[in-house]
Amino acid sequence: MNAQQPMLRDVKHIDWEPLMAERTKRMKSSVIRELLKLTVKPDIISFAGGLPAPEFFPVREFDEACQHILSTCGPQSLQYSTTEGHAPLREWLAESMRKYGIDVEPDNILMTNGSQQALDLIGKIFVDPGDCILTSAPTYLGALQAWNAYEASYQTIELDDEGMPVEGIPEIVKKHHPRLVYVLPNFHNPGGVTTPLARRERLVEMARKHDLILIEDDPYGELRYDGEDVTPIFRLAPERTIYLSTFSKTLAPGIRLAWIVAPKAVIAKLVQAKQGADLQTGTFVQLITHDICQRGILKSHVKKLRVVYKERRDAMLAALDKHWPSSCAWTRPQGGLFLWASVPKSVDTAELLVKATEKKVAFVPGFAFYPDEKQGRNTMRLNFSNATLEQIQEGIRRLGTVLNETL
Amino acid sequence: MNAQQPMLRDVKHIDWEPLMAERTKRMKSSVIRELLKLTVKPDIISFAGGLPAPEFFPVREFDEACQHILSTCGPQSLQYSTTEGHAPLREWLAESMRKYGIDVEPDNILMTNGSQQALDLIGKIFVDPGDCILTSAPTYLGALQAWNAYEASYQTIELDDEGMPVEGIPEIVKKHHPRLVYVLPNFHNPGGVTTPLARRERLVEMARKHDLILIEDDPYGELRYDGEDVTPIFRLAPERTIYLSTFSKTLAPGIRLAWIVAPKAVIAKLVQAKQGADLQTGTFVQLITHDICQRGILKSHVKKLRVVYKERRDAMLAALDKHWPSSCAWTRPQGGLFLWASVPKSVDTAELLVKATEKKVAFVPGFAFYPDEKQGRNTMRLNFSNATLEQIQEGIRRLGTVLNETL
Repeated sequence: MNAQQPMLRDVKHIDWEPLMAERTKRMKSSVIRELLKLTVKPDIISFAGGLPAPEFFPVREFDEACQHILSTCGPQSLQYSTTEGHAPLREWLAESMRKYGIDVEPDNILMTNGSQQALDLIGKIFVDPGDCILTSAPTYLGALQAWNAYEASYQTIELDDEGMPVEGIPEIVKKHHPRLVYVLPNFHNPGGVTTPLARRERLVEMARKHDLILIEDDPYGELRYDGEDVTPIFRLAPERTIYLSTFSKTLAPGIRLAWIVAPKAVIAKLVQAKQGADLQTGTFVQLITHDICQRGILKSHVKKLRVVYKERRDAMLAALDKHWPSSCAWTRPQGGLFLWASVPKSVDTAELLVKATEKKVAFVPGFAFYPDEKQGRNTMRLNFSNATLEQIQEGIRRLGTVLNETL
Repeated sequence: MNAQQPMLRDVKHIDWEPLMAERTKRMKSSVIRELLKLTVKPDIISFAGGLPAPEFFPVREFDEACQHILSTCGPQSLQYSTTEGHAPLREWLAESMRKYGIDVEPDNILMTNGSQQALDLIGKIFVDPGDCILTSAPTYLGALQAWNAYEASYQTIELDDEGMPVEGIPEIVKKHHPRLVYVLPNFHNPGGVTTPLARRERLVEMARKHDLILIEDDPYGELRYDGEDVTPIFRLAPERTIYLSTFSKTLAPGIRLAWIVAPKAVIAKLVQAKQGADLQTGTFVQLITHDICQRGILKSHVKKLRVVYKERRDAMLAALDKHWPSSCAWTRPQGGLFLWASVPKSVDTAELLVKATEKKVAFVPGFAFYPDEKQGRNTMRLNFSNATLEQIQEGIRRLGTVLNETL
């Protein structure tokens, strides 16, 4: 070794900024990720993240699956495999989605590293710099992060109690020519609302008329606590819908396993994009997940989660009713992990968060879910899946106190 | 469900091609990935892939690590974690790279889903459409795939026995203004050659003079069979080098785990790019890999691999000497998984591959490793890590027969 050479910590730094690509200027750290740092402090009650309840992860079942896979096909589970994903897992998914009316072949499915990668790959194959994407305001923050890197622009329609209204679409199409429409019809993140069938049908009608691609993001579809399943948009317009779902909320996020359903012409291009992006999703996690799925564990586990999360949602709604001023409003989600609250316009929730963390309670300020961060300043997202009933009651009480002090 | 709605297989397909982004036109399926389909036929002797020997994967050690992690920190191992990667694993890596003179802090390290993702993220933050990247010809195919998606252009310098010659750099800089230089100084893929210290030092000198960023891809550094370790380029120019390495070749590729070492200003942007690309690398695989590493298993495992792969390399070299016509030439790699062969100019190795697969033996035609696929038509890459000694002898004999028949 050259002892005379300086180490990294001693050398003069070069100025990297001018060496970077144009798109890099649009990248910034997400508020959610920064806020996750708050959640590691054990004394904070956090409604900020989108974390499932770790105390219910099927740890023993994972252990059994790991032992089974390593003892029966150890070398295969640790080797390279195909970009498309483990074929038996895609077969299982094709079979299991039929109950929702998503009737496709395994070759219509691509496995991804969480739905975040699905969003990234969609941006990669569809979005040219400046291309317009139509979505609701608020919308899922991770989608904005993925597509900002491809220099997308956004047109938004304000979310209502039934999801994204569709009446405004023709005018936006005329002016801004979006090709992609991004929706979260079940238990919207962050909005907590669900789009009924009639509006889904009107959306599909407009998509057909204006030749739009529909991105249907459905991470929480299985986590319904009240009411009946609504037909997926994919079922209504399979020729132009790209459907996303994930094991992150039903099984565990730490395995990073999700999937895209799309026509084969789209899957073919997504596969090529994924080859360049990371070759393939992990063989090992796909094999153990398939083992867990085909032993029926996922189904019974989701049943348990529905009971647990319903209780937590109900506890949060009851605490809000009890502790928050009547000038505030919030959604009553039929499923998922989040509800969405509005406070009087005079309150900026980013400022409120500072006071809240002093009282050891956290949430995500709503502006983070808008392409235009000047919007949604009096809103917030509250997660109810990752706190106990006691924490929910105490945390919402503390937030009520902070709100009452501020107003 | 709407029984009157048609299923995907019945609907009229829409024309997706015109809906896709400009960059998507440059994506195509890699020859290597298509060839991997050959390797699944059990009766073919394949020197095509870059697969490690699965019979030596530490399956039992993985099993122990899974059990240990799930029993001691199961919920944590299945939960979301940070984009940067599991801190104790980054600490272990920082410590373990010191023996090569790469003396950095854990915060100089980002965990990625295989080195392919590292290449993708580098493209994402550095490459604007049309930007020039300087590399050797041939060069690693996966890097071209990653950067094609960002519409990179390439300038190449023909590889020699010491890697990429550096004398031509000033002229290329003058004409094409590359910002990035991509090199594989140890056991080049596909070339099999290693760059000696003197040339590394001259490269660094030129990079400093012309303000170039050096991408040092080092997947095989630990797998040296002869000779002495050469100082990494990162050690010589830590202020402007981005160093990549991986567990894929030393432990197992099916866990998709690699890392990037870079100045913190670069890591910060890579982290933001990764947030949008897939949020984080799997928590579970990072925790089990850390468990394996800190129990000293990786070190002893690499020792074993060196013995096995050296034997295979030697068997391939001996078989080539014995069976191939004297008009052919090949490299004698000091490590890694590949050697590179040239046949007389009259032979197109893509055509040769068709004849070879009839004789149940496969390789990668060399053109796949050139940005300009008209180059390298009489070359091929041979992998020696994923075949037994008998298969190597028999496969090289068959290829010799095909070559003799063709010439």
